[in-house]
Amino acid sequence: MSENFQKLLNKVYEIHDINKALGVLSWDKETNMPKAGTKARIQQMTTLRRLSHSMFTSDKMGELIENAASKLHDAPYESNEASLIRLLRRNYKEARLLPAEFVQRISEISGKAHPAWVEARENNDFAHFKPHLEEVVKLVQEMAELYGYEDEKYDPLLDQFEHGMKTAEVRAIFDATKAALIPLRQAIAERGAAVDDSLVHQPFPIGQQKKFAHYIADAVGYDFARGHLGTVVHPFATSFSRNDARITTRWYPDFLNPSLFGTLHESGHAMYEQGTHPDLARTPLARGTSSGIHESQSRLIENVVGRSLGFWQAHYPKLQSLFPEQLGNHDVTAFYRAINKVQPSFIRVEADELTYNFHIILRFELEQAMLNGDLRVTDLPTAWNDKMDELVGVVPPTDSQGCLQDVHWTRPGFGYFPTYALGNLYAAQFYETAVSQNPTIAEEMAQGKTQALVNWLRENIHQHGRKFTPSELVQKATGRPLTHEPFIRYVTQKFSQIYEL
Amino acid sequence: MSENFQKLLNKVYEIHDINKALGVLSWDKETNMPKAGTKARIQQMTTLRRLSHSMFTSDKMGELIENAASKLHDAPYESNEASLIRLLRRNYKEARLLPAEFVQRISEISGKAHPAWVEARENNDFAHFKPHLEEVVKLVQEMAELYGYEDEKYDPLLDQFEHGMKTAEVRAIFDATKAALIPLRQAIAERGAAVDDSLVHQPFPIGQQKKFAHYIADAVGYDFARGHLGTVVHPFATSFSRNDARITTRWYPDFLNPSLFGTLHESGHAMYEQGTHPDLARTPLARGTSSGIHESQSRLIENVVGRSLGFWQAHYPKLQSLFPEQLGNHDVTAFYRAINKVQPSFIRVEADELTYNFHIILRFELEQAMLNGDLRVTDLPTAWNDKMDELVGVVPPTDSQGCLQDVHWTRPGFGYFPTYALGNLYAAQFYETAVSQNPTIAEEMAQGKTQALVNWLRENIHQHGRKFTPSELVQKATGRPLTHEPFIRYVTQKFSQIYEL
Repeated sequence: MSENFQKLLNKVYEIHDINKALGVLSWDKETNMPKAGTKARIQQMTTLRRLSHSMFTSDKMGELIENAASKLHDAPYESNEASLIRLLRRNYKEARLLPAEFVQRISEISGKAHPAWVEARENNDFAHFKPHLEEVVKLVQEMAELYGYEDEKYDPLLDQFEHGMKTAEVRAIFDATKAALIPLRQAIAERGAAVDDSLVHQPFPIGQQKKFAHYIADAVGYDFARGHLGTVVHPFATSFSRNDARITTRWYPDFLNPSLFGTLHESGHAMYEQGTHPDLARTPLARGTSSGIHESQSRLIENVVGRSLGFWQAHYPKLQSLFPEQLGNHDVTAFYRAINKVQPSFIRVEADELTYNFHIILRFELEQAMLNGDLRVTDLPTAWNDKMDELVGVVPPTDSQGCLQDVHWTRPGFGYFPTYALGNLYAAQFYETAVSQNPTIAEEMAQGKTQALVNWLRENIHQHGRKFTPSELVQKATGRPLTHEPFIRYVTQKFSQIYEL
Repeated sequence: MSENFQKLLNKVYEIHDINKALGVLSWDKETNMPKAGTKARIQQMTTLRRLSHSMFTSDKMGELIENAASKLHDAPYESNEASLIRLLRRNYKEARLLPAEFVQRISEISGKAHPAWVEARENNDFAHFKPHLEEVVKLVQEMAELYGYEDEKYDPLLDQFEHGMKTAEVRAIFDATKAALIPLRQAIAERGAAVDDSLVHQPFPIGQQKKFAHYIADAVGYDFARGHLGTVVHPFATSFSRNDARITTRWYPDFLNPSLFGTLHESGHAMYEQGTHPDLARTPLARGTSSGIHESQSRLIENVVGRSLGFWQAHYPKLQSLFPEQLGNHDVTAFYRAINKVQPSFIRVEADELTYNFHIILRFELEQAMLNGDLRVTDLPTAWNDKMDELVGVVPPTDSQGCLQDVHWTRPGFGYFPTYALGNLYAAQFYETAVSQNPTIAEEMAQGKTQALVNWLRENIHQHGRKFTPSELVQKATGRPLTHEPFIRYVTQKFSQIYEL
């Protein structure tokens, strides 16, 4: 390794350490910190963030990158060194595109928008949030111009979360998904057999839920020796190194799904981080490559694995033994059907595996309309309800259950929502490929085991960290670009069986 | 406030935020982090420590301090501004007295000494630790020279933990303490009534211990709305702001004292931090002024409050209700006597309120002897055992239970041990003064309440943070310098009654 590269690495390590320290402060804030500690914690985090940002955006950093790059002519594209230079160049360029004044303005506008949104949602008062959302829309419009774009204004926003993917590409995939899913959703509603999910809505003592969460995360392949399960209000996964990748969940006293599928979901995220190659440690390569690919790992574990019949044939007896009164009289088929009930509903985070995607497509379309000036914020509630009717087939009775339900638009984070649905599509394509390449995966899955599957993910996804863009990774792992087809095959087969279509 | 002072404050805030972030990383390391995360966490902490150290010891920092000081002619001694300048000047000067090479050497020598000590203690093999302790002794000798001193070589080491206090002063106080305590210890052994403490050595389910720990910490005045109780191997208290001051404890399944008195002890520490004045926030003034004064707060809550009869007359019924099988047949007097049993023993951290001080005086004398070259490390085991015989009246059968028991000498931290006993003496003097100034304190204490006492501590100790040196604070709060007399009065009265002398 050249001396120039080592110099670059030393600075990269330093910035990485500060960013990971920020992660620990954030984790602690959500898990253990008393509310009273908020003000001081925000100050501490702001200081670390400013330090990290000023180090990374300095002229000196640019020189370090270019000096190291200049000695790297022969490094292959997929080498760690060349990949790091690519990523740093991109991040550096982008970080310097947003003026400090603009970043400051984001922080101020978001800081005011958040409490206004909380209040508006609480009181079902869209008018109260409206001026703040207008400010946020202006911010994303300005941000798009600052980043610049060739085709669509939404491109540079999407690019922040799904690097290299174009709006037009997502639109084509989502349109095809929509065209296939609407008839399936309608068929289930009109001709499908009834599914009773009352068995997951019973009192489930939290101590027992915790025991099962540990059991089931371990069962899917989350490594507790390199992790930790914490309790929070809004679950997330986070990692401070591949050897310390944590999950969180919440516990409802009378509803089993949130802790169960929340734990599986976050386990999928954390397993991605646990699986990054050790050689990438302490660099920005040591994490999942994009929001969509990250979501594919969580959805794969939560849904493809965690909502499959074979999985529960193996693990349901354990669940029954922890909740004999609640589940003793329900067999595994009843449980499998209950956790796969399709039920058009108003709230995205409560949506089932099938209708969830409609909630995302709706947001993807509305974000573009607002960004492009085709939809005024004042008309958002009506547009929202119209799209709900078209896509999900139900119309929320209040804005709180409609366009006020998500926290996301209190920040200029347009472009993030689509990655949730992309995650589902990536997951199906990865799984289909994995099974076709290694039949053991399907055999193990029928017995509730995931070792072969996790090995495939480690090999084809996890270890690479951020070395490749999402589309490079999908091409490499599955031999073709992302399409909606594997997902449609997967849901059609699964729900046709469950609903006896 | 002058512009110069504001500039100084901005830099002080920044460094403070980094130091508190370090504290969070350390807390998380001890409470939640999987062991596998150690390497990355040490890297993160090293980076933050280096950043903070290089900011604070920079020439620029010196200028900021002096520029701010130059505009501060008229600020009274006890003003926050003048106090901050005093503290920063001292810390700045001291931080620059140790060359980077020396600091690096400390880290290397300690890094090797710690595992060697663990092994030596495990195998009762002093010879294995000896060369490392010799290195540590050389380090403290060198450190004393780097800091410089007028009277005794031990002075600058002690000064790190108890600023302004001289070795000769501590020696005089300890000698007087020793002279008074040895006869008392002997009288208890020879003529005292028997005390049975088997009732605290029973199985105590940990879930119930946790409930009581929360109850009792709240009862003494620890504010859970601005705190948190965590589980660790080696208990400590730490604070990230006055609004986030945490305690930790450990749980023994068949011994009640560690969780109970550990919780009270750490609550006393954390209450000090919770009580610092809000105006000191984000500066190095916002913490306890010295190790000894800090220990006075923990000992006051643990012993003066937490081992008093009135306290348990109020709270024992609650404890009994949580452990009816274990404690239902023992009355409060039996419990009070059990938790106050005096029993000469080998291990400092298990020692009772009376003999504990001998363990400290022993270490204080041996540290000086090693530092001054009067005691070779090779002769430490013999010297240790001789002093144990003289002071505690028992001789440990092994070095593991003797001179190898403490972790402290794996680091060049000579001067810290005496602050443990000073804490006991300060505590007694504070308490005697508080009760004499406000009789309500004693009335409340007889009913297990601490509100008036905590108010006195807030007013006279906590709020000042680090504005005053220990001796200034003692003089201010009690009207005289520290003496051994209140402590001797306190233990003599208490144990004469318990042991019917």
